[in-house]
Amino acid sequence: MADGLPLSGLTVIDCGQVYNGPYAGFLLAMAGAKVIKVEPPCGENLRRRSVVGGAALPFAMLNSNKKFITLNLKSDAGREIFLDLIKKSDVLIENFAPGVMDRLNIGFDVLRDYNSRLIYATGSGYGANSEYSDMPAMDLTVQAMSGALGITGYADRAPVKCGPAICDFAGGTHLYGAIMTALYERERTGRGRKVEVAMLEAVYPTLSSTLGLWFRSKGQTIERTGNHHGGMAESPYNVYPALDGYVAVLCVTDAHWESLLVAMDRTDLVGDSRFSTLAARVERLEEVDQVVENFTQSRTRSEISAILRRLRVPFAPVRNLSEVTSDQSLFDRRFLQKINHPLYGETVLPTSPIRFDNADPMTLEPSGELGRDNDEILSEFAGLDAQSIERLRASGAI
Amino acid sequence: MADGLPLSGLTVIDCGQVYNGPYAGFLLAMAGAKVIKVEPPCGENLRRRSVVGGAALPFAMLNSNKKFITLNLKSDAGREIFLDLIKKSDVLIENFAPGVMDRLNIGFDVLRDYNSRLIYATGSGYGANSEYSDMPAMDLTVQAMSGALGITGYADRAPVKCGPAICDFAGGTHLYGAIMTALYERERTGRGRKVEVAMLEAVYPTLSSTLGLWFRSKGQTIERTGNHHGGMAESPYNVYPALDGYVAVLCVTDAHWESLLVAMDRTDLVGDSRFSTLAARVERLEEVDQVVENFTQSRTRSEISAILRRLRVPFAPVRNLSEVTSDQSLFDRRFLQKINHPLYGETVLPTSPIRFDNADPMTLEPSGELGRDNDEILSEFAGLDAQSIERLRASGAI
Repeated sequence: MADGLPLSGLTVIDCGQVYNGPYAGFLLAMAGAKVIKVEPPCGENLRRRSVVGGAALPFAMLNSNKKFITLNLKSDAGREIFLDLIKKSDVLIENFAPGVMDRLNIGFDVLRDYNSRLIYATGSGYGANSEYSDMPAMDLTVQAMSGALGITGYADRAPVKCGPAICDFAGGTHLYGAIMTALYERERTGRGRKVEVAMLEAVYPTLSSTLGLWFRSKGQTIERTGNHHGGMAESPYNVYPALDGYVAVLCVTDAHWESLLVAMDRTDLVGDSRFSTLAARVERLEEVDQVVENFTQSRTRSEISAILRRLRVPFAPVRNLSEVTSDQSLFDRRFLQKINHPLYGETVLPTSPIRFDNADPMTLEPSGELGRDNDEILSEFAGLDAQSIERLRASGAI
Repeated sequence: MADGLPLSGLTVIDCGQVYNGPYAGFLLAMAGAKVIKVEPPCGENLRRRSVVGGAALPFAMLNSNKKFITLNLKSDAGREIFLDLIKKSDVLIENFAPGVMDRLNIGFDVLRDYNSRLIYATGSGYGANSEYSDMPAMDLTVQAMSGALGITGYADRAPVKCGPAICDFAGGTHLYGAIMTALYERERTGRGRKVEVAMLEAVYPTLSSTLGLWFRSKGQTIERTGNHHGGMAESPYNVYPALDGYVAVLCVTDAHWESLLVAMDRTDLVGDSRFSTLAARVERLEEVDQVVENFTQSRTRSEISAILRRLRVPFAPVRNLSEVTSDQSLFDRRFLQKINHPLYGETVLPTSPIRFDNADPMTLEPSGELGRDNDEILSEFAGLDAQSIERLRASGAI
């Protein structure tokens, strides 16, 4: 099935856990690589959590089309098999706390002696040589450290985290790019590399708009701007109430504003100098918001959509998860696929956001149970027979 | 300076605008590629905006170490020069609205006849063949469409956008990965590719936690969870008031909880069955929050940090932009660099979040004025002399 995909023939050892590392492995699998997910015999953190709460779907989302093996890397036998895997692989992904791989004696300095072509990819919250390397890093804590949390929410209320796990995924997506960069380089030099991504740094560029306002104000503290532009440099730019929810509306150009006035049947304001330039509209932000709200609040999102789309005003309904996960357009593009998951039942899973021309999105193979592919992989990579594998299982090495 | 970096020798034509496309070009430049930013003679949108408001810094952040030329792609002469550039380049990046490149007669089907090895990378909000392709797509509107906005904020208040421009950057980061994947493939096949990333799809995986809760509840509408876990599957997991701001605290394991109790001098609660398991703590979320808040509210962030770091409880101060942009650890890692920018003055700019072992982060070359490198690049790529370039300038083609 991976024929014709860019990464056919590549083998990846994915020791990732939760979101960051596993997402990099997922993108590699979706581009055609053979990705072997290595878990401790108790299962990785996210799989363990998936027996309760809402963590089953995330595990399924990030681990499609992977092979599933268990290895106790703290055991001699487990470490030996891991080295056998490394010898025959192209990429290793890990996002343990900094220092864990070295303590297991399978850090980059050790592994490159077994495979000089190995790409060793490490993801962490703050980097291996950061002042904060000892601090446990999860999405929430990195949102706090990075400033992302402090700039989200309303000025008159405590700051609030971004609902999406933006730091974990910024880390994992950059890690995929880092891996591909090193693989490209290896084609030319024949040598592997260690590549590193810290979530704190991966999320920093996303603060651009607010950093811009902050630097311009010479370091004056920036209040949270709610749904207004983070740089307070556009108007209208807000989320407005509709009869059945909310709509986001903004105008990047004066032409957008004029189109919006036409849409709102407010052509009396066309050419009105109180609103005709961006500077004037920013100056009269609250009046502008009131004009727009008067239009939206008496209409449904779809009524608003019908009018604004025709006039190409930048606009979108604020959708809930029910609307997003049933969006026919995402199924038509085969980005979302309906799956009857063997472990979790009927569900909807994504493929990769990266799309190659003349290659259909991957057909999803649902994630499997813990250790599902032990026999196949241990036989293929370590030459073990059924009896040896049974002994390993009995000893707790797998 | 780019010697030894993975992408030395590659040439990229960056027609990107605002954040999405330019960020992909920035990551390529930081990995050693020669990136030629092509702007219309009036400058790209973000540069035009940078004369007012807070947009100067974002332009500087995303356009370090690039070459700057102008081309009027609607003019015959401008298009001819563009084709000369394409013939000698490896990658083209564009994030115009779907259809614009085809209308300019420089879409992928045209360009590949000029260069069969070209990687054509296109970023957009919804994809070229989406039901929403006609809708102008900016970060705010894609946050609304994707569900990211609807799940952010407090349940008793209107939804609020994520402060960071998460959709633009999720798009740009995936686009970088897509480009590197196609470049890797080209080393093996000799052929270029078109690659595409839609922001809507790029941000979908970040919703994992909340999607998990939503699917588990069989599609019942999920309220916004504020600073609580999006899957309501962890406790404590919240942002708590301190004397001088806020702190984020969470416990992923029972061991974390016991460490936190020691830190808070509440060992009377160790082993208390009301709190000793995750399930119990989730059940008594408000009581748990109160216990933690009683500890944080009478201490400063740094007092709390000193105690929780020593005991390795997952924790971080909620930092403001002043603290983030002056973080010595980020300068020590050379991720942030102080720059005296020729256009914007003293500022702080980031390098790439992608780090290669044995290669120092790129020394930043500040972004330049519009058309700064016209003479150099037009001479090198199109063989034009000073007189011809002057004629192009006079005619408005550059």
